Amino acid sequence: MANDPVILINAFEVPAGEDDKFLASWESSHDFLRTQPGYLSTRLHRSLAPNADFRYVNVARWESAEAFRAATAQPEFRAQTPPYRFHAALYEVIREDI
Amino acid sequence: MANDPVILINAFEVPAGEDDKFLASWESSHDFLRTQPGYLSTRLHRSLAPNADFRYVNVARWESAEAFRAATAQPEFRAQTPPYRFHAALYEVIREDI
Repeated sequence: MANDPVILINAFEVPAGEDDKFLASWESSHDFLRTQPGYLSTRLHRSLAPNADFRYVNVARWESAEAFRAATAQPEFRAQTPPYRFHAALYEVIREDI
Repeated sequence: MANDPVILINAFEVPAGEDDKFLASWESSHDFLRTQPGYLSTRLHRSLAPNADFRYVNVARWESAEAFRAATAQPEFRAQTPPYRFHAALYEVIREDI
């Protein structure tokens, strides 16, 4: 549906023992993104097991793909890219039984 | 917090053009899991772009890690493992600004 939010899902590969370093980087990016037009909300997930393929998964809601792309194209954001491999894409919810 | 739900996040590598095949497999697994003790809810996300690293990401809530492990240890579930590479782990929400 055209007016539904889009969902950013970003899965981060963070080695064991680097939680504090990752979180400092993530908080910095989040502090910037939450000020941008179209930002709605974020949930940051940490794996129960320290050795998961993706130690952290960020799930954020944005008003539109255009708003997300405009925010992440800002030089202030691009200078903060976290020092970990990540897999980010925009999604729509296609099944839901909540 | 001990009584918070745990979050299963499962990222699936599905080649372009195999959406129908993936969804048939996912629906079959979901139909089983939703009947199991401790199951709470599911959201299935599909990427806006067909070539994302993870075409589908499933985010489900369970009452506990034990409930999830008991459900997925059932022979009926194990026989249904989807024919795609996936990255599944249990998570807790550590930051939230919803």
